[in-house]
Amino acid sequence: TAAVARVSRGPAELLGRALFVRPDGSYEGGLGGRPERDRTAADEAGALLAEGRTGAFTLPEDPDLTVFVESSVPPPRMIVFGAVDFAAALARTGKFLGYHVTVCDARPVFATRLRFPEADEIVVDWPHRYLRQTETDARTVLCVLTHDAKFDVPLLEEALRLPVAFVGAMGSRRTHEDRTRRLREVGLTDRELARLRSPIGLDLGARTPEETALSIAAEIVAARRGGTGVPLTGSGTPIHREEGAGAHAAA
Amino acid sequence: TAAVARVSRGPAELLGRALFVRPDGSYEGGLGGRPERDRTAADEAGALLAEGRTGAFTLPEDPDLTVFVESSVPPPRMIVFGAVDFAAALARTGKFLGYHVTVCDARPVFATRLRFPEADEIVVDWPHRYLRQTETDARTVLCVLTHDAKFDVPLLEEALRLPVAFVGAMGSRRTHEDRTRRLREVGLTDRELARLRSPIGLDLGARTPEETALSIAAEIVAARRGGTGVPLTGSGTPIHREEGAGAHAAA
Repeated sequence: TAAVARVSRGPAELLGRALFVRPDGSYEGGLGGRPERDRTAADEAGALLAEGRTGAFTLPEDPDLTVFVESSVPPPRMIVFGAVDFAAALARTGKFLGYHVTVCDARPVFATRLRFPEADEIVVDWPHRYLRQTETDARTVLCVLTHDAKFDVPLLEEALRLPVAFVGAMGSRRTHEDRTRRLREVGLTDRELARLRSPIGLDLGARTPEETALSIAAEIVAARRGGTGVPLTGSGTPIHREEGAGAHAAA
Repeated sequence: TAAVARVSRGPAELLGRALFVRPDGSYEGGLGGRPERDRTAADEAGALLAEGRTGAFTLPEDPDLTVFVESSVPPPRMIVFGAVDFAAALARTGKFLGYHVTVCDARPVFATRLRFPEADEIVVDWPHRYLRQTETDARTVLCVLTHDAKFDVPLLEEALRLPVAFVGAMGSRRTHEDRTRRLREVGLTDRELARLRSPIGLDLGARTPEETALSIAAEIVAARRGGTGVPLTGSGTPIHREEGAGAHAAA
């Protein structure tokens, strides 16, 4: 993750000069002016980088100078725990939404490339052990499809304490209640438990693996974008919100 | 659309004998017994065919005879009107859900194979004219993304009078109100207008074309399966309902 901020318009001797900006705000290079200007430009570029955006800005003190920023941000991660039948459809939907998709299962006969041709990565490991050592961030979504307390409880114990975007787990009401009880027993707080989306997904009445995957992906989008899941018919809310334009209608 | 019903268990001399059954109940061939038995078997096979299902049955009078039925039903149609940017993502999601996807637009520069590599069919024609002459059925979904009264009004006038599964149209609240007024002017009744899903999609707060496509596909599934779209968290409703088993939990 880094951004390159380059002078794209301005005096000939400055054109093409660039800063290399890191997420922590540090930078290298220079735009050929005072160091304070580089610091201000690095801050502007850092703000775009934090949102994963590419764009341009001008500095208040130098209105003739345009700086173009290219942010390079790796795709967010979706980790699907449980190489169950649904998981292949979910991996496909995750790819469709732009996620880097990992499928993790402790059982080597299920976690195979043949069953998950569209996953970016297939990991044979105990879910909680894998989650403990892999990198996640505030955009990561964790989908727990294992349905088995032996895997779910140690996994969710880790997952619900990580600052990730989304933690969901599949299961019936009974599974959910049993799981919640076991998670309390291992010491999870109400606040930690409140982060768990369970049963995972929106109520679409899904029957097929594809419909189920869609209901999970729809919940992930709604959680990320602040949607409710109810039909837009009659609501007046536009289906498509322009990036940065708030509730702006597409038509 | 047809079913083949074949004796899969029973006396050696009957094994493999078959009926070819059409949706109207007519049939050819025979299972090698009395004509009444063929009639009963054709009825049973027709019932499976009507649901697009493959399965087996035994006849009450012949418990030793098992008849296996293979239904061959073409995939349902999704017709996307308007070769807009969203449409490619929607075509992909439609394919994912098993639809035969057609993209229709009057503008040849937009309705191209290059822009819609995953559509089954690309049609350059006026939407309402195309809809009038193409075959639809009770499983067909119509998605109107054109955003232009010139195309939308004559198209929706046709669409809302067809016995299809789903008619949705994109647009802001203002577009929707203007469109509703024009549709009333051309004579659509309240009951016909009530079938229109507009703005199309569930409220996921969608921003990207992929998220928008997902919100439309999710509404189509919810409409088909009777889902509400709200998160399953806390609702106790299982995300996955087994075919034919009602609200049966997956775990």
